[in-house]
Amino acid sequence: MTALLTDLYQLTMLQAYLDEGMQQEATFELFVRKLPAQRNFLVAAGLEQALQFLETLAFTDDEIAWVERQGGFRPALLDHLRTLRFTGDVHAMPEGTVFFADEPILRVTAPLPLAQLVESRLLNLVHFQTLIASKAARVVLAAPAKLLIDFGMRRAHGAEAALFAARAAYLAGFDGTATAEAARRYGLPAFGTMAHSFVQAHASEADAFVAFARSRPQRPTLLVDTYDPLQGVQRVIDLAPRLAAEGIEIGGIRLDSGDMAAQARAGRAMLDAAGLRGVRIFASGNLDEWRVAELLAAGAPIDGFGIGTALDTSSDAPSLDAVYKLQVYAGVARRKRSAGKATWPGVKQVVRRFDAHGRMLADRVQLEGEPLDGEPLLQPVMRGGRRVGAAPTLADARRRCTEQLRALPEPLRGLDPVADAYPVEISAGLHALAAAVDAATR
Amino acid sequence: MTALLTDLYQLTMLQAYLDEGMQQEATFELFVRKLPAQRNFLVAAGLEQALQFLETLAFTDDEIAWVERQGGFRPALLDHLRTLRFTGDVHAMPEGTVFFADEPILRVTAPLPLAQLVESRLLNLVHFQTLIASKAARVVLAAPAKLLIDFGMRRAHGAEAALFAARAAYLAGFDGTATAEAARRYGLPAFGTMAHSFVQAHASEADAFVAFARSRPQRPTLLVDTYDPLQGVQRVIDLAPRLAAEGIEIGGIRLDSGDMAAQARAGRAMLDAAGLRGVRIFASGNLDEWRVAELLAAGAPIDGFGIGTALDTSSDAPSLDAVYKLQVYAGVARRKRSAGKATWPGVKQVVRRFDAHGRMLADRVQLEGEPLDGEPLLQPVMRGGRRVGAAPTLADARRRCTEQLRALPEPLRGLDPVADAYPVEISAGLHALAAAVDAATR
Repeated sequence: MTALLTDLYQLTMLQAYLDEGMQQEATFELFVRKLPAQRNFLVAAGLEQALQFLETLAFTDDEIAWVERQGGFRPALLDHLRTLRFTGDVHAMPEGTVFFADEPILRVTAPLPLAQLVESRLLNLVHFQTLIASKAARVVLAAPAKLLIDFGMRRAHGAEAALFAARAAYLAGFDGTATAEAARRYGLPAFGTMAHSFVQAHASEADAFVAFARSRPQRPTLLVDTYDPLQGVQRVIDLAPRLAAEGIEIGGIRLDSGDMAAQARAGRAMLDAAGLRGVRIFASGNLDEWRVAELLAAGAPIDGFGIGTALDTSSDAPSLDAVYKLQVYAGVARRKRSAGKATWPGVKQVVRRFDAHGRMLADRVQLEGEPLDGEPLLQPVMRGGRRVGAAPTLADARRRCTEQLRALPEPLRGLDPVADAYPVEISAGLHALAAAVDAATR
Repeated sequence: MTALLTDLYQLTMLQAYLDEGMQQEATFELFVRKLPAQRNFLVAAGLEQALQFLETLAFTDDEIAWVERQGGFRPALLDHLRTLRFTGDVHAMPEGTVFFADEPILRVTAPLPLAQLVESRLLNLVHFQTLIASKAARVVLAAPAKLLIDFGMRRAHGAEAALFAARAAYLAGFDGTATAEAARRYGLPAFGTMAHSFVQAHASEADAFVAFARSRPQRPTLLVDTYDPLQGVQRVIDLAPRLAAEGIEIGGIRLDSGDMAAQARAGRAMLDAAGLRGVRIFASGNLDEWRVAELLAAGAPIDGFGIGTALDTSSDAPSLDAVYKLQVYAGVARRKRSAGKATWPGVKQVVRRFDAHGRMLADRVQLEGEPLDGEPLLQPVMRGGRRVGAAPTLADARRRCTEQLRALPEPLRGLDPVADAYPVEISAGLHALAAAVDAATR
């Protein structure tokens, strides 16, 4: 993606910094100011794409020509853009890490103009995948051991959202996606059944089922609710012997509307009575973690769920209060004091302590350099514009997320909001520094 | 974007259709089943991108190789993909058209496998821009004659969402965007001020203001709330004579936090008393149409607004119930009857009637061919895979939207929900066809 995928003011500020010779080192931190009421924790994601962005940052001649045409930008800025590359250091929480408000998940240290310039796209990348991984983790906790598939592409907010949502959901524990390009790009398992239109286009539902099964004989899943779901199940049962004779074993049925708990129970009973115990029941259609939990609590014998719009848009909380703020410039800690938006100054680390069973006990946000009495969550990932060590794979991130969810304190695992259930302490050093900064900038 | 940006089941169904020789003509329609409670109307957008997608649809060898590696796809399908192009007809409402539930905004007629294949990306493209244009139109109605700028890139759902949101907002009447690449790509006016970090990085707020104004002397806008907004305004007033002596006229101040109505009133009075009547007041920070309306109702002397996250994510309604449904195959009308998701069959037109003052009176969804007694909203835009006539420009679409908003019945112009305030009739012909289809598919 182009380097111009940024706010115009980044270029304006860049020019002013160059004019003033303000090129000393700055540290910015990316964090979420406040969790949405519907989230008890967040899951860090999108780091891999953030690092790819930093590694490849460069302006093309066409882009620079556009900047020039805007007016008000001088040759010194345009020349600077021509050779600009990201040369800074980055610390970050590994993807899949659980985190809370005020905890930096990404920290950039670089010459001020450069560290500032990358703000918009870094936020755009890290905010969205973190948003989706955090939503997906709730579905994963609500439906242990169920097959979970991302179905959201059509109502995701554009192409990149569809692709990143599939990745972030997988990272958080989903089993795969319906989006072919996401499967290709990130090596995810791809899943798919059939649309209602497929059934409608055929002279009868039975014709559609047979045609589909013959075309795709590897345990096909048949969509039964186009006209009447239990009639659809009966048709599957009626067709099963004929398909079995052709060597085709029906893999599953999909429910997509109406009272799915009742349909699943009745459908399961019908299938079992017909000896089709191996046919799985898959549900989709306006599902989210609440509906999934309800269906499972009602004892619906559903084996898997396709989660679409609610997942890919994080519908109950479609954004996080994610920000990227200056913490230090030229060795001096900085702080914003705007009403309701004040920040903690200085270069920070987040330390997490665990109980004897490996469950999370408490976090502390502290200054880099204060004693570590737990796991430091921010790790060096880029130095001088180059990655430190090999990039973790998506499988690594998914594994980390699974472990993190296992370590969550019990109250945070539920869907209901538990305000401030998890202690995040601000260190004494940080309090002292904030007071000192305030005193100095009155 | 790759042709694999689609749901896997589109490829599975495509293979089944080829196996069966089901290549007769089908018509699909894209519509919204039900408006979100917070929307009194929607604005069609994204058509231009939809047509670009159809015009350029093609699978590369790499993509076909990936399909092959999935297993279950046969050589006949892979060969078909190699030469596949979109050869169908498209009717659509022009971008910027106001529409309601159950009204098709896009209609595709093509051989069944092809018309089906394009579903996922067509929805993905048209849904999102329609979502954002519909949200933006509310802001436009809430803030007549105010400068409105899209500020949402950082929390938009990825790159494409940021770009499309800027375009859709402009289409709906916004004045421009802060996102440089969106401005470049769509020819939008680009706007930008400064970040808090810019002020924080300087030894003092006054230093920051002077440096910024000198670097960008074309009527700069200065962000005054980093430490204390009215102190910030006072600093602007104190600096104005010095900057004026250098030929720099301060263009505006930006408020971004706290009680902005009070700050704007106090700030305006201070600026006016200092003879700085030309300095505009610009507000941003968690704004949406409700906050904007509140600020204006409170008499806040604010000249412009930057709307970010709420706009780019359509935060109060982050998705629409947009679907793409088979209406006719091989000359026979089709209908889905799933609980709560039943569709009207047949190829349709939407007719709108106006009163003597040009205000919208009522719409009717009817069968293509039923008598037209108003403006038919669906127009031919593509025939045999090629565009009909020249593409309307974004300026055309924006003009159309302005006219459409002007023609809205009064109750629909407000922010409060008015359930069913606008009559959308289903024609007698359509009722009769639905009954006939039901009778035939029992």
